Amino acid sequence: MRYTEQKLEGKNAVTEALRSGRSVDRLFLLEGGGEHAFDTILRELRKHPETKLSYVRKERLDAMSETGKHQGAIALCAAYDYASVEDILSEAEKKGEPPFLIILDGIEDPHNLGAIIRTANLCGAHGVIIRADRAVGLTPVVAKASAGAINYTPVAKVRNISRTIEELKKRGLWFACADMGGEIMYKLDLKGPIGLVIGNEGRGVSELVRKKCDMIASIPMKGDIDSLNASVACGVLCYEIVRQRSEF
Amino acid sequence: MRYTEQKLEGKNAVTEALRSGRSVDRLFLLEGGGEHAFDTILRELRKHPETKLSYVRKERLDAMSETGKHQGAIALCAAYDYASVEDILSEAEKKGEPPFLIILDGIEDPHNLGAIIRTANLCGAHGVIIRADRAVGLTPVVAKASAGAINYTPVAKVRNISRTIEELKKRGLWFACADMGGEIMYKLDLKGPIGLVIGNEGRGVSELVRKKCDMIASIPMKGDIDSLNASVACGVLCYEIVRQRSEF
Repeated sequence: MRYTEQKLEGKNAVTEALRSGRSVDRLFLLEGGGEHAFDTILRELRKHPETKLSYVRKERLDAMSETGKHQGAIALCAAYDYASVEDILSEAEKKGEPPFLIILDGIEDPHNLGAIIRTANLCGAHGVIIRADRAVGLTPVVAKASAGAINYTPVAKVRNISRTIEELKKRGLWFACADMGGEIMYKLDLKGPIGLVIGNEGRGVSELVRKKCDMIASIPMKGDIDSLNASVACGVLCYEIVRQRSEF
Repeated sequence: MRYTEQKLEGKNAVTEALRSGRSVDRLFLLEGGGEHAFDTILRELRKHPETKLSYVRKERLDAMSETGKHQGAIALCAAYDYASVEDILSEAEKKGEPPFLIILDGIEDPHNLGAIIRTANLCGAHGVIIRADRAVGLTPVVAKASAGAINYTPVAKVRNISRTIEELKKRGLWFACADMGGEIMYKLDLKGPIGLVIGNEGRGVSELVRKKCDMIASIPMKGDIDSLNASVACGVLCYEIVRQRSEF
């Protein structure tokens, strides 16, 4: 996974990055910039405990600036490169294993996405597919929560999850969707080339995506509440796949 | 689980609560309190995106105050009551099931603790035991991450995990410690009265606690990194216990 750093210059660019929920690694503001010069930035910054803030001299900002128009504010953001679905399939082929993919239908919490990439790496899944809209991408918080797995396990971003499932079905994959009311996971055959579909933290798997799946895999539950944390549910299902695929 | 709200009054009390990492639900500051009146509080507040900040009039603060010495700052913190280990055991007895406990040897991340309480509730564990020092307690962030499970699943806090394990062994429990280099979990017998021990996110299970355990349960791993997220590992092991205990 190639990591690049992006520099944002100027009050508006910095404010917008913070407002959009994008992770900002470092923020440099002009020291003694005037009483209310950075009010908006500082207000947005409250939602970003991950950002390291430094007040620096004008000379330092000028030296960092590439545009020459920093207006007293420069932010450094991280960016990670995505793999393609093809990359993930060839990963499986290289290892001579039936493909084992994790498809995320709208995971929004970066800690969950990080934990899932971590699980994917350790359980032997060949990659993770996420959707482009209404989902968290590969931010530094995700990278940190993945405990380094982001550097090994390919993550692909697709516009249309259900179309991707259709295409992968033609390549011989079966799809199991994690949801209530399906077959208890221990009774399903999860040994072949498989895509495990995990839904959004609140809404679960979308109707359109669920319909494309070959089976609904349910984790047995006997408690008082509705569902497991999404990354825990993903881990439990991944290891049921591991158990069935291996000879222990 | 009884929920109580605690009121903190005065700049020092509020600053210390924020500094200690305690979760603060709401913070009320005096509007127009003077240019730098709340500099320290506002700086600490940056680490607390969960806190809702409101600027209010002196009359409102006076009305809220119980001490009459609010200095322009009042914070509301949540507090949850803990169960006892005995409560957890009687929970198992009431259900006529062999005890199934989760023992946490120093979980620090509130999202992990919340997710583990959630898992405990759904997999049929009778309770969670946490340690009093160097670990997160039942904060509002934990309560939220538990998705309501905190209201059903008893959580006990003990001073000495290894002594608690010793005492529970006398009551017939067996202890399985989650760690690398042990027996693969599928090969262990996890059907009887059991305590599952999960270690700290970074350091794992402490040596003293590990020595008290009857077995080391390992999750098979074939990736490039070291370990699963703690709440995911706990979920995977809990469901191996569920699988072995049930007839599916």
